[in-house]
Amino acid sequence: MMELKERNCVPLSEGTAAMKKEEIERYKKQLLTEWLVIKAEKLKKKFLFENYKRAMAFVQEVALIAEKENHHPDICIYYTTVEIELTTHDAGGLSINDFIIAAKIEDL
Amino acid sequence: MMELKERNCVPLSEGTAAMKKEEIERYKKQLLTEWLVIKAEKLKKKFLFENYKRAMAFVQEVALIAEKENHHPDICIYYTTVEIELTTHDAGGLSINDFIIAAKIEDL
Repeated sequence: MMELKERNCVPLSEGTAAMKKEEIERYKKQLLTEWLVIKAEKLKKKFLFENYKRAMAFVQEVALIAEKENHHPDICIYYTTVEIELTTHDAGGLSINDFIIAAKIEDL
Repeated sequence: MMELKERNCVPLSEGTAAMKKEEIERYKKQLLTEWLVIKAEKLKKKFLFENYKRAMAFVQEVALIAEKENHHPDICIYYTTVEIELTTHDAGGLSINDFIIAAKIEDL
């Protein structure tokens, strides 16, 4: 099976349901690092950098992925800490696209 | 008097007190646009952009100001909306530095 990070986000057909807990757990295992799952609706992870320049370089790389895949995580920058939050609004929770972006981000 | 946007952030001596309400109001009037003052501790403003590329270009400009002035606002990116929050941790509230950065940001 193709690794998550190699895959591309897919357009979701209307009415696509959010992932259920079991499915979330299954995909979570395919991520290489620990991501927080919030209310079975969001993937969240905090990234720490040695300085602001590196933090901002990371943010720019994340933005490039987001734009290419047309799936945009929330990004919060607190000096050298960057928080990434992923969800799929159209599904009202998590979709495969969130895990694909998460995998690509941790591969940076 | 020199305009806020022309000034540079200053190192704060230890024990510098946060601005009081009256002082905050006075400096707030020198800003060209409306910023929210939260609990007399933070300046906050939401910026909306027509697309993600422009939002990210704005974030990069803000980061350049932050790095140059060594005063770093919290920056949150929600697709085409960018939220900026300014406070001075060392003072436990607002300082002149927050207003200087705010003025430079609204000048972008």
